[in-house]
Amino acid sequence: MTPVEETEDQRRVRGARARQRIARRAVDIASLEGLTGLSLGRLATELELSKSGIQTLFKTKENLQLAAADAALAEFTTAVLLPAQDAPDGAARLRALTERWLAYAETPLFTGGCFWSATLPDFDSRPGPVRDVLLAQHNAWLDHLAGRLRYAVDAGEIAALDPDLAAFQLDAVFSAANTAMRLGDRDAAGKVRRTVEGILTR
Amino acid sequence: MTPVEETEDQRRVRGARARQRIARRAVDIASLEGLTGLSLGRLATELELSKSGIQTLFKTKENLQLAAADAALAEFTTAVLLPAQDAPDGAARLRALTERWLAYAETPLFTGGCFWSATLPDFDSRPGPVRDVLLAQHNAWLDHLAGRLRYAVDAGEIAALDPDLAAFQLDAVFSAANTAMRLGDRDAAGKVRRTVEGILTR
Repeated sequence: MTPVEETEDQRRVRGARARQRIARRAVDIASLEGLTGLSLGRLATELELSKSGIQTLFKTKENLQLAAADAALAEFTTAVLLPAQDAPDGAARLRALTERWLAYAETPLFTGGCFWSATLPDFDSRPGPVRDVLLAQHNAWLDHLAGRLRYAVDAGEIAALDPDLAAFQLDAVFSAANTAMRLGDRDAAGKVRRTVEGILTR
Repeated sequence: MTPVEETEDQRRVRGARARQRIARRAVDIASLEGLTGLSLGRLATELELSKSGIQTLFKTKENLQLAAADAALAEFTTAVLLPAQDAPDGAARLRALTERWLAYAETPLFTGGCFWSATLPDFDSRPGPVRDVLLAQHNAWLDHLAGRLRYAVDAGEIAALDPDLAAFQLDAVFSAANTAMRLGDRDAAGKVRRTVEGILTR
């Protein structure tokens, strides 16, 4: 083996890194324009890679869309879900999730804001594996919110409510606020906070 | 003038009808895939018209998008806003608007469901005349909801609340339900009704 030759392991690591970098860029594009606007050719141009290289890594546009959904969830978990775990479960956890979510949408973590707000309305009428993954991720998020609400009710921290309905309402307001922020509504975060407090202090 | 020749008036009427038919089809496509996926060529194929004919009528894709927004609002007004006027203003009007809106999203009036739920998240990061029109239509809807809520509060029908915040929450839940319906949630309409009753009977 000469020094310029790569080992099988080195090649694999380089491939994984390239996949990651491409998927991350795909998340940014999807957050702006939805997942259907993605194309291997466009990513190649934007990342200054060869289209055939990207094709080798992902094979199909669908694989790229699925990789983007995975990458988005990984970053969302790191930026929103895990840090909120520092707060005790229940009302405090819900407030922490709200603040992390607002930072995620406002900073924003992805160029166009929330990944699911941009991709779910786009994919809701397109059955297939991509829709299934987006829906499963969305339902896991709703279940997570409902679980924290249920905990808060059981602990006597907040008044009795239907946790699934309240989770649906919270997520709806989060998503509407994400769009409102992009449309210049400076009170979007305030509306989210007042909605959360309305539920927690009813 | 021979019988086969059209008068200027007849030509104008025919042009207006063709524009209307094309714009209405554009609304259906946009409700499924957003307004950015529209193209003059695709509409020509689907409606079996010549692309040059459509080009003559609309000139640009942006004009077509604006015509679609106008057509969507006209149909929404006829299907949702006007029939609800039969109910007295306040809580009864809000319940009528809710039922009309649910029928609009569930039937659905446009192939892919709510026009604004499909187009606003898509256009929120694209400044320009189309976004301005969609945003103005959206704000008029929020103002309409807030006005009915304000009336209900002033008439002593419902407990005091922030009408603008409650309108934002209602619209957010409507829009989330529109997506949920497309994703197979059979309780989406139920969640909307429980949210409305939660606000009206707090």
